[in-house]
Amino acid sequence: MQHSAAPLRLKKDQERRLLAGHCWVYSNEVDTAATPLSGFEPGQTAEIISAQGRWLAHGYVNPNALICARVVSDQRAHPFNSALVLARLHAALALRNRLYSQPFYRLVYGESDGLPGLVVDRYGDLLAVQLGTAGMERERDWILTALEQVIRPRHIVLRNDASCRAIECLPQTIEWVLGSDPGSVELTEGAVRYQVLPSSGQKTGWFYDQADNRRYLTRFGTAARVLDVFCYLGAWGLQAAANGAKQVICVDSSAAALGQVEQIAQDNGVADRVAVQRGDAFDVLRQLRDHHAQFDLVILDPPALIKRRKDEHEGLQAYQRLNQLGLQLVAPGGLLVSSSCSYHLSRMEFVRTVQHAARRAHCTVQLLHSAGQSPDHPIHPAMPETDYLKTLVFSVVPGH
Amino acid sequence: MQHSAAPLRLKKDQERRLLAGHCWVYSNEVDTAATPLSGFEPGQTAEIISAQGRWLAHGYVNPNALICARVVSDQRAHPFNSALVLARLHAALALRNRLYSQPFYRLVYGESDGLPGLVVDRYGDLLAVQLGTAGMERERDWILTALEQVIRPRHIVLRNDASCRAIECLPQTIEWVLGSDPGSVELTEGAVRYQVLPSSGQKTGWFYDQADNRRYLTRFGTAARVLDVFCYLGAWGLQAAANGAKQVICVDSSAAALGQVEQIAQDNGVADRVAVQRGDAFDVLRQLRDHHAQFDLVILDPPALIKRRKDEHEGLQAYQRLNQLGLQLVAPGGLLVSSSCSYHLSRMEFVRTVQHAARRAHCTVQLLHSAGQSPDHPIHPAMPETDYLKTLVFSVVPGH
Repeated sequence: MQHSAAPLRLKKDQERRLLAGHCWVYSNEVDTAATPLSGFEPGQTAEIISAQGRWLAHGYVNPNALICARVVSDQRAHPFNSALVLARLHAALALRNRLYSQPFYRLVYGESDGLPGLVVDRYGDLLAVQLGTAGMERERDWILTALEQVIRPRHIVLRNDASCRAIECLPQTIEWVLGSDPGSVELTEGAVRYQVLPSSGQKTGWFYDQADNRRYLTRFGTAARVLDVFCYLGAWGLQAAANGAKQVICVDSSAAALGQVEQIAQDNGVADRVAVQRGDAFDVLRQLRDHHAQFDLVILDPPALIKRRKDEHEGLQAYQRLNQLGLQLVAPGGLLVSSSCSYHLSRMEFVRTVQHAARRAHCTVQLLHSAGQSPDHPIHPAMPETDYLKTLVFSVVPGH
Repeated sequence: MQHSAAPLRLKKDQERRLLAGHCWVYSNEVDTAATPLSGFEPGQTAEIISAQGRWLAHGYVNPNALICARVVSDQRAHPFNSALVLARLHAALALRNRLYSQPFYRLVYGESDGLPGLVVDRYGDLLAVQLGTAGMERERDWILTALEQVIRPRHIVLRNDASCRAIECLPQTIEWVLGSDPGSVELTEGAVRYQVLPSSGQKTGWFYDQADNRRYLTRFGTAARVLDVFCYLGAWGLQAAANGAKQVICVDSSAAALGQVEQIAQDNGVADRVAVQRGDAFDVLRQLRDHHAQFDLVILDPPALIKRRKDEHEGLQAYQRLNQLGLQLVAPGGLLVSSSCSYHLSRMEFVRTVQHAARRAHCTVQLLHSAGQSPDHPIHPAMPETDYLKTLVFSVVPGH
C-alpha cells in the first residue's frame, strides 16, 4: 500500500453493524470531532475503530458521500492492498469456475465478493469494469493490474458511467484501458447466440442476474404466444422463441435495442416468429389490451421503478399498474413472469402488489416460483442491500 | 350439496382480509351475537357476509377451531359442491401436467389450489390424501369420488394422522379407502430410484417440496464429501452420491429411515459410498466437529424447529446452533445447504441467523441461492401462510 491509513473513529455504539459483518459506515456514525471526515482525501484508506478504541476493520473513506466508509477487511493482518485484491479475485474466480462452464458471468459483485465498490462483468476475454466508489477509483491502477494478472483478458473497458458514481462525486466516463473496442461480443445463453455491446449497452451490456431465471423458465414448458416487455436485447423473448414459441412480441422504448433484437432473431433463425414494438411499455400494454390481445406468457422485466426510498409510493403504484396491465393480457392458464430490481421493494411487498393487481384484473394467480439473482451475484448475508432482484412466476386463471 | 349453507356474519370492518383474497376467518372476527358459532356443526357450509350484509364468500365452518371458517369460493354462483371440487381438481391437474412429465408430485396444496384443508400427494396411481379440516372431513365422500373421477387412481390412502387434525378436533387415523396397501412405491428423482412408504412414512412418505431444490443443487457441481443431516430417506445425500460424491454420510434419529437409506443406496449401486449414522443431529454434528471431520457439502434439512409462534425464541437459537455446527464442518470453499420449513421464521430472519452462526464459526458465507417450495406447492399470494419453505445455498470460506 502506497497510501497511509488514517484512523476513522466511530461514535459510541455505532460499531454494531460492522461487528455483524456489514461493510458500510454512514457519515453520521463517525466521531468527526476525533477524526474529521474533511481530513480524508476521497478514497483514502482508513483503519476503523470504535469509540472505545477497539480496532474494527480496514476500509476506505469518501468524505463527500453519505456512505462515508466501506470495510474491505476485518482482519488486521489483511489491509486493503494488492495482495488482498488478488486473493479476493482468485476466490471470486474459483466460485465462478465452479458455477459456469463458459467464462460469461459477473466475476466480481462488490461487497458480496469482498471488494466493495467494484463490479466486473466478464464476456470471455473481455472485462467490463465498474469502479463505483472513490476508494476503488483511487486504486484503479493496481486493481486493473490484478485483474490482468488473474484473468489475462484481451480487452478491459471501464464502464464508469453508472449513476452511483455521481453520488461519490466521480466523473462519468467510458474508457478502454486494455485492447480496443471489439464492437460486439458473442454470448450464448440457453439455445440463443446474442451480440452484446459492452461499451455502449445498458449497464455493461447484458443482465447476467436474470440468467438462471431465464433458464428455469423452460421448466414451465413451451408458451405459444409470448410478450416480452422492457425486452432490451430480447433475452427472455428470444429464449422463448428458441424454446418453440410460435409468436413473440418484444417491446422496448429503445429503437437501437429493438434493431439488435431483430438482428439477433435473424442470426438465430427465429425472425419469422419474433416481432418488435417500440414504445412506452405502459402505452403498448394498454393498446394490446384494447385490442384484446392474449398471450400464454407475459414477461415484465422493467428497470427499477423505485430508485430511491422517497419514490416508494409512486413506484409501488407503477408496479401495480404495470402488473395489472400485464395480467389482463395473459390467456387463461398462462403465465406471468414479473420482476423487480428495486432494492426498496421487499419480496413480500412485491408479491402483495401483484396480488392487488390480480384482484383488480379479476383473475386468480398462484405463485409458482420466487427467485432472486443468479449465483454470480451472491448475496452478502449481513447486507440486505446486496439482495435486490425478485423474479416471480405466476400461473393466471380468470375469475377469483 | 346436501347441507344447508347458513350465514356467517363478520364483525364490523373484519372483511378486509377476505376482500384481499385471503381464505381464513378467525373466531374473534365473527359477529357471534348475530350468527353464533355454536349454531354450526363442524364442517358445515356457510355463506360469509360482512357486518353491512355484503355477501363475501362461500366457505365452511368449524366452531371448535381458532380458524373458524375458510373461504372456498368468492363467486356466488359457485358454492362448495362437487362441481366446484371437480373444477378445482382439473385445474390442479392441468398445472401439474404442465410442470411434470411423470405423475409424482403434490396434486393439491390446500388453499393455494382453491381447496382449503385438502392436501393430496400423488405417487403414480396411488394418492395419499390429507383431510386437514372438519370441512373437508365432512365432505370426504364426494371429495374421494371426485379424486377417483379425475385421476382414476388404483390406491387411495387417507393420511389423516397429521397434527393439524387435532387442532380441528378430528381423530388421527390412517385408512385405505381404495385398493390395498401396496407396501412401498417406487419414485425416481434425478438419477435415483427411491422406495417410499405412503402409509407409514413421514407426512405422506416423501417431501416433494424440496424436489426442485435438490435438482438445482447439481448446478454447483460435484462435492466429494457430503453430510446429509436429518436425512430421512436420504433424498439429498443419495442424489449427491449419484452425482459423483465419493463419501456420503446420512444422519437421522430414525433407525427405520436409515435402514431404508441403506437399501435404497444398494438398489442404486452407491452403497459403497454411503454410510449412515444414527443419533440426535446436534450430538452427531458435535462428535464430527470434535473429530475435525470436513465435508465439501453439508445439508441441514430439519423438521420445523419453530412449530408455534411461542417457540420462536427457542427455535431461532436451535437454528443458529445447528447452522454453526454445520458451518464448522464445511471444508474451505465448500457449500452449506440450509433449510427451514418453519412458517414463523421469515426468510430474512433465517439468512440473518445463518450469518450470526457464520460469525460465531469464524467463517465468511455468501448466499448463492435462496429458494422456496417446488411449484407443485404454489404460494397463494394473499396468504403468506402458504409460503413456508426456505432453502439457502451458501459458499463457505474460513475467516472473515
